[in-house]
Amino acid sequence: MSGEQELGITESKEHSPGDWYAEVVQKAGLADYAPMGGFIVTRPRGYALWEAIQDRLDGWFKETGVTNAYFPMFIPESYLEREKDIVEGFDPEVAWVTKGGHDELEEPLAVRPTSESIIAPFMAKWTRSHRDLPLRLNQWCSVVRWEATETKPFFRTKEFLWQEGHTAHETEDEAWTETMTRLDQYERIYEDELAIPVLRGRKPEHDKFPGADTTTTVEALMPDGKSVQGGTSHYLGQSFAEAFDITFIDEDEEERVAHTTSWGLSWRALGALIMTHSDDQGLVLPPTVAPTQVAIVPIWQEDTKDDVLQYSAEIAAELEDAGVSVELDDRDGRNPGFKFNEHELNGVPVRLEIGPNEVEDERVTVVHRPDGESVEEDRSGIADTVEEHFDTVYDKLYAAAEENLEENVREAHSPEDILGTIGRYGGYVKTPWCGDEACETAIKEEIAAEIVMLPLDEDGASSAESAEGDDGEEQIGDECGVCGDEATETAYFAKSY
Amino acid sequence: MSGEQELGITESKEHSPGDWYAEVVQKAGLADYAPMGGFIVTRPRGYALWEAIQDRLDGWFKETGVTNAYFPMFIPESYLEREKDIVEGFDPEVAWVTKGGHDELEEPLAVRPTSESIIAPFMAKWTRSHRDLPLRLNQWCSVVRWEATETKPFFRTKEFLWQEGHTAHETEDEAWTETMTRLDQYERIYEDELAIPVLRGRKPEHDKFPGADTTTTVEALMPDGKSVQGGTSHYLGQSFAEAFDITFIDEDEEERVAHTTSWGLSWRALGALIMTHSDDQGLVLPPTVAPTQVAIVPIWQEDTKDDVLQYSAEIAAELEDAGVSVELDDRDGRNPGFKFNEHELNGVPVRLEIGPNEVEDERVTVVHRPDGESVEEDRSGIADTVEEHFDTVYDKLYAAAEENLEENVREAHSPEDILGTIGRYGGYVKTPWCGDEACETAIKEEIAAEIVMLPLDEDGASSAESAEGDDGEEQIGDECGVCGDEATETAYFAKSY
Repeated sequence: MSGEQELGITESKEHSPGDWYAEVVQKAGLADYAPMGGFIVTRPRGYALWEAIQDRLDGWFKETGVTNAYFPMFIPESYLEREKDIVEGFDPEVAWVTKGGHDELEEPLAVRPTSESIIAPFMAKWTRSHRDLPLRLNQWCSVVRWEATETKPFFRTKEFLWQEGHTAHETEDEAWTETMTRLDQYERIYEDELAIPVLRGRKPEHDKFPGADTTTTVEALMPDGKSVQGGTSHYLGQSFAEAFDITFIDEDEEERVAHTTSWGLSWRALGALIMTHSDDQGLVLPPTVAPTQVAIVPIWQEDTKDDVLQYSAEIAAELEDAGVSVELDDRDGRNPGFKFNEHELNGVPVRLEIGPNEVEDERVTVVHRPDGESVEEDRSGIADTVEEHFDTVYDKLYAAAEENLEENVREAHSPEDILGTIGRYGGYVKTPWCGDEACETAIKEEIAAEIVMLPLDEDGASSAESAEGDDGEEQIGDECGVCGDEATETAYFAKSY
Repeated sequence: MSGEQELGITESKEHSPGDWYAEVVQKAGLADYAPMGGFIVTRPRGYALWEAIQDRLDGWFKETGVTNAYFPMFIPESYLEREKDIVEGFDPEVAWVTKGGHDELEEPLAVRPTSESIIAPFMAKWTRSHRDLPLRLNQWCSVVRWEATETKPFFRTKEFLWQEGHTAHETEDEAWTETMTRLDQYERIYEDELAIPVLRGRKPEHDKFPGADTTTTVEALMPDGKSVQGGTSHYLGQSFAEAFDITFIDEDEEERVAHTTSWGLSWRALGALIMTHSDDQGLVLPPTVAPTQVAIVPIWQEDTKDDVLQYSAEIAAELEDAGVSVELDDRDGRNPGFKFNEHELNGVPVRLEIGPNEVEDERVTVVHRPDGESVEEDRSGIADTVEEHFDTVYDKLYAAAEENLEENVREAHSPEDILGTIGRYGGYVKTPWCGDEACETAIKEEIAAEIVMLPLDEDGASSAESAEGDDGEEQIGDECGVCGDEATETAYFAKSY
C-alpha cells in the first residue's frame, strides 16, 4: 500500500493549489524540473499533449493560408536594438550568447525572446509586389525570456515552447481580419479541444505588445480564481512595416507600406488544461487530447482469467480499429484497484472494467474519469458507444469550467467593491474605467489584480482604438469604478498567471 | 525576358557545383542567408521538405515504441564537463550563454550541441526497474555547433535542425537491435522517400561518436563524387549508463547497468535531396516529398479561355479529391513558357499542360520534371494516371542516383591507386586496411579524403567490434592498401561533406 500512496496526489487542489499543481505535473509524468532554475524537462506524456495542440492548430493554420518556416534562434544585438526605435521602453530580458567555442563574439547574440526583429527584415526582402501578399509565416520553436520568477511548469519557465505567426497584408482591413482569424483559432483550441471556455478581449493601451496597435487576447479563468492569458493576436498596424521597410508596389505602381500582424500561443495552454480539469486524484484530460483515451482493466480470478483477457483483447482491438487510443492493462501482479488509481492519476478519460459478469452478459462497464460515473453498456457497437462517452466526458468538463466562469464575472463600482470582490471571490470584476493606467495601478498595489482585458469591438482596428463605449458590450456605467472620472470603457480586473 | 533570366539558374551543376547549389537553394525559395555568418533562414518551401521528412520518420519512430519529449536547449557547463570524464578529448565547440538579462550567470550555459549530457541524468532518474525499460525518447529540435566553416545551407550551418533519439535497454542485444532499427529507418527515408540509395556501414574507431561502442552510418554519394553522412545510429554500450548511473533492478532483484543508444538525422538530408536530383533548370524533387506535386498550366487563346480553364479546374479538383497536392496556375499576364520555367525552378515533379486540343480530345499532356518526357493521357481516370506517373518519376530519380553510386565504388590497392582514383573519379574507393588511423591520415593529407565507412556486421555489436574480415562483405585483400601491413577490414575512402 505504501507504493500506492507514494504514487498518489497528497496535496489539495482547493487548499494548496500551487503545491497540488506541481505534484500533478510531476506524478502524472508530464514534466520534471531541470537542473537550472526556470527550466523544465517535458516528459513524453506532457509532450504528447503539446503535440495534440500543435496538430490541431497547425492544421487550421495551413487551411487558412499559413506556411511554416524556421528562423535562427539567435538575434544579433543590433537587430534587437532596432526595436527600441519602434518601441519606447523596449528592454528585453534575454539570454545573451557572448562566446562561441573559445572566442568572444564580436557582437552578442540574444536567444530569441520573440522573433519580430529577425523575421521582419526578411518579410521586407521577400515582399516586392502586391502579388507577394498576403505573406503568412509561422514557426514552432522555443523562446527564452530571462525573468526571475519562481518556476511553475508550463506557466512560468525561462524557456518555453510556442508558435509565433507573422503576417503582412495590403490593407488594414485584411490585417485586422487576420488578427481575428487567429484569435478565433485560439478560442477554438480552448473551447473545442481543451474544454475550457474563454473570454475574448483586448489589452489596455499600457499592456499591449510593444509596438502593436491592438493586442487581442483570449482569457481563461482557472479554478483558483486567477486568469490565464491563453493566447494573443496582435494587429501591429504599420509600425513594424515602417520600421523594417515592409513595402510593396501596388497594382497602380505606387509603393505602399504593408500592414502586419503577429500572434502566439504557448505551452501555457497545457498549464491551463492541467489546472482547469484535474483533481485530488491527479490529472484529468478531455478525450480530444488525451494520449491514452481508454484504459481497459480486466478483473479476473484464476479460473476466469483466460475468458476475461480474451474478451478484453477483442474489445481493445475493436476500439483500436476505430481509431481510439486504448491501453489494455493486463499486467500481472497489480490488482485492479492499483490500476484504477494509476489511470486516474494519469488522466485517462474513460475506463472500461471487464470481469466475468461482463463476459457472461456480453456487457462492458464504462467509467468516466472526471466524476467516477459508471454505466453498463452492451458489448456490441462498443466503439460507437465509447465515442458517445467521449462526448459526454467532454461536455461534463466543459460544463464545469463554464459554470466556474459564469459564476465568477462580477460587477463593481468603487475601489472598495473591486478589492473586496476580488479578495473574496477571485474571478473577473468588471467596472467602468476612465482609461487611465493610474487607476489600474491603484488596484494592483492593493491586491495584485490588474486589467486583464477590455471588451473587443471585432469590427475593426480603428474602431477598437477609438472605443468609446460602443464595444459590442453594454457600457456598465458612466463613472470610473476607481477614480470616479468619466468612464470610456469596461475593464475586467483579475489576478492573473 | 530579363525577368525570366533573373529567375533562372545561371550556374552549372557540373562545372561549379558549389555556386550552383547555393543558387538553387535561394532561387527555389528554400533558404536565405541570415545576417550572422553560419546561420540560415529556412523558407516555407524548404521547411515543407523538412516537415515531410519529420512526418515520415516521426510516424515510424512512434510505430516502433518511441515517444517524443523536450529537454532544455541549455546545458550547464558542469554537465557538459561530465562527458569529458567519459570521453577523452571531448571539447565541444559550442555557443555559451554567459549573461541573462543584465546579469552575468554564475555558471555558463552551453546551447546544446547534442543532448546526451542533459538527457542521460533524467533517463537515470526515470529508470528504476526492468519494467521501466526499454525507455525510448526522441526530440525534434535545433542544435548549435560553433564550427568556423563556410556556410552551406543544410550541409554546414552553426545551427541546424535535427532529431535526436536516446534509448536505454536491459541487454546488449536489445540495444544493438535498437541501433539497427533506427539505421533501417534512416536508410528507408533516403531510399523510399528521397530517392537516394545509400550504403550502410560503421565508422572507424577514431571517428566514432565520442563514447560510443559502435557508430553506424548511412552514406549517400553526391553527383560531385563526395559522400554525405546521411544519419548515424550509435550503440553506446554501457559507457554512458555507467557514467550517468542508468541502472535498473532486474527481475532477480539484482541491480544492473543499462545499455544505451542514440541516433540522429539532421536537415543535411535536405541538402542531399537538393544536390542529388536538381539540375541546371533548378530544383528537382521526388513526388513523395514535394510540397506541390502537380502544376497544371492551362494554355489558352481568348476564344478558348473559358473552356480550357473550366476543364483544368475540374481536373485540379479531381486530383485534390484524390489527395494530390496540386496548383492550378491560371495567372493572367504570365505566358505558359514563363510558368513552365517557374515550376521547373521550384521542383514541381509533374506538370499537366492543357490546351484546346486536350479539351477537345478529352486528354491531358503529362510532363515529367526530371527529363521533360511528355506523354498524352486520357482525361478519365486522371488521378490514378497521375499516381502512376509519380511512381515513374520516382523510379527515374532513384535509377539515376543508383547508377551514379554503382559506377563510383572502385577498388584500389596502393596509395597511388587510392589517390589517383579519388582524384580522377571521386566516389568511394575501397581498399584493404590495417586499422591504423595513420594510414587514413596519409591519404587525407594528400587529397582530403577519409575513411567514411567500414562494412557493417549487422549481427551484433560485439562481433562488429572484433571484425576480422567476417564483415558480411568479402575481404578484398590481405595487405593494407596504404602501408602494406596485414589488413583486418575493408575501408571506404571518399571525400565528404
